Amino acid sequence: MSEMKKYNVAVVGATGAVGQKMLETLEDRKFPVENLKLLSSSRSAGLKMMFNGKEYTLEEATPESFKGVDIALFSAGGSVSKKLAPEAVKHGAVVIDNTSAYRMTEGVPLVVPEVNEADIKEHKGIIANPNCSTIQMVAALEPVRKAFGMNRVIVSTYQAVSGAGNEAADELREQSQSFLNGEELEANLLPVKGDKKHYPIAFNALPQIDVFQDNGYTFEEMKMINETKKIMHAPDLSVAATCVRLPFFTSHAESVYIEVEKEGVTVEEVKQLMNEAPGIVLEDDPSTQTYPTPLSAAEKRDIFVGRIRKDLDDDKGFHLWVVSDNLLKGAAWNSVQIAERLIANEWL
Amino acid sequence: MSEMKKYNVAVVGATGAVGQKMLETLEDRKFPVENLKLLSSSRSAGLKMMFNGKEYTLEEATPESFKGVDIALFSAGGSVSKKLAPEAVKHGAVVIDNTSAYRMTEGVPLVVPEVNEADIKEHKGIIANPNCSTIQMVAALEPVRKAFGMNRVIVSTYQAVSGAGNEAADELREQSQSFLNGEELEANLLPVKGDKKHYPIAFNALPQIDVFQDNGYTFEEMKMINETKKIMHAPDLSVAATCVRLPFFTSHAESVYIEVEKEGVTVEEVKQLMNEAPGIVLEDDPSTQTYPTPLSAAEKRDIFVGRIRKDLDDDKGFHLWVVSDNLLKGAAWNSVQIAERLIANEWL
Repeated sequence: MSEMKKYNVAVVGATGAVGQKMLETLEDRKFPVENLKLLSSSRSAGLKMMFNGKEYTLEEATPESFKGVDIALFSAGGSVSKKLAPEAVKHGAVVIDNTSAYRMTEGVPLVVPEVNEADIKEHKGIIANPNCSTIQMVAALEPVRKAFGMNRVIVSTYQAVSGAGNEAADELREQSQSFLNGEELEANLLPVKGDKKHYPIAFNALPQIDVFQDNGYTFEEMKMINETKKIMHAPDLSVAATCVRLPFFTSHAESVYIEVEKEGVTVEEVKQLMNEAPGIVLEDDPSTQTYPTPLSAAEKRDIFVGRIRKDLDDDKGFHLWVVSDNLLKGAAWNSVQIAERLIANEWL
Repeated sequence: MSEMKKYNVAVVGATGAVGQKMLETLEDRKFPVENLKLLSSSRSAGLKMMFNGKEYTLEEATPESFKGVDIALFSAGGSVSKKLAPEAVKHGAVVIDNTSAYRMTEGVPLVVPEVNEADIKEHKGIIANPNCSTIQMVAALEPVRKAFGMNRVIVSTYQAVSGAGNEAADELREQSQSFLNGEELEANLLPVKGDKKHYPIAFNALPQIDVFQDNGYTFEEMKMINETKKIMHAPDLSVAATCVRLPFFTSHAESVYIEVEKEGVTVEEVKQLMNEAPGIVLEDDPSTQTYPTPLSAAEKRDIFVGRIRKDLDDDKGFHLWVVSDNLLKGAAWNSVQIAERLIANEWL
């Protein structure tokens, strides 16, 4: 960043899987932080965390915590955002909210900078960060949609446990060791903390992420469907999703089928778009078995795309494999990126 | 089985992941075995295996091994089938071949008994057992296709490592323990034994099963596409597949999107069909988080279907989640089932 101005930043939910990555990303990006406040539940208050070589003590998040804060990054669950984001805004902060609390709220921009950076400008204090599995998909699809039109998206996801937080990662680790020891698996958390039933995730696949809605879709699936249309400003785009939790720690992968509007588009043209798109890395060469995987994409900010194929029956159909670190581009990095664009465009 | 006649059975590749399950299934089904021959490579010859409480010694499979054999179950790789299946037929055996060697051969029936049992009758000595991921899908879809027509199938798979054999299961086990110990992962086999590159499967997802074809699809994907059309006698059915190997030991899961021909079909009608279909168990109740998973389907011969939803944009579109034990219905059980139907119909 070229400007010298620095900002007072609050991170709400700093001890969580995403909160930790937010601090790492602010460091990595040399974000112009003047003062940093690490906010948490009363339970975590008093704990200490490091940022840029300095120790910070976590404070309990209260309405008063946001006095003097310029930018507040929220990732402490929907109920905390519902309660405290308006308070932060009252104190003059711009909130970048990583929960689902405000994503579909009329007038709240829902932003993936590679897709709809300009929407940031319309904020009234709160900018919503989309769902992790949505972000990587729309960023990969938008260049294709812009070039050739798009009327259909059907996605099946392969999602990491860290999307359900550090506790879910611990559960996978413990269950995996139990399984290898030949012991009984204990399931207390996944697929959804607080839901009625729990199933083992180790050496398994759970076709449920977040709670079921009345229409038989899970909330995760409805997030992908509704958020994609809002981010792309494409209310008529058909989007269908099946979301599956899998036994790996980091990165979501997605098998995406799309139908473009233009006839005769080639795989080479789609690959070319991916090569040119910001934030996208093309990893696609069958002759050398080159494609992204959750392990290869982990700890990286980019979105990786491979396995691009034309449908064998539909001239307008294409299949893609999209992988990205769910805690970085899917959460922390996209939030920090919104903050960077907010500053660079002077939309704060 | 009601008849008293017994048959001389040979199992080729008895020590493999599928071969072992074939013996278990013949036992479980009380298959009318007169004499049993366990055949293998010269490497495994001399090893001993148990069947119905009796010890058998493995013999090296040669053309002469098939003298007096009525039914030969092959699962020792395509090259062994290419070489020895015709020899077995010459000696009067009927071969049920679990490799891809003859599946697409004109005149060789490719059979899933729930779908096309009558095709068995047309055999000229060899009957092909389809690919594991194909079997469970076509058995689940055929009742819907028969009732309402079908013109489109788009599937993304979630496939267990045991589909690549016992060695692949060992690799997953060893890599998983290394990962949990914080050690480097050693990849020597997956995604494809003998292919140029190997990637870790533990806590990862590999979007490659079997080798890449010139069109950018993997052979596993092309098997699903071509075999589905052959089994269903539906050359005009559009089928698209993305096949992904995942870190679990048993059962393949599939996220399947279909388009039926009839308008106004309801989810309840599709569920009803699944409830009535032979070999299919409906496990589908969002209100109680009921759906099949790889762990819940393992060691069972049925195909489990859940998460049945209508597409939100296309009245003719439906989404399903189909899970089955890849070594049983996907291989050993389907082969033994073909043998049972062969006998029951007197088509031997």
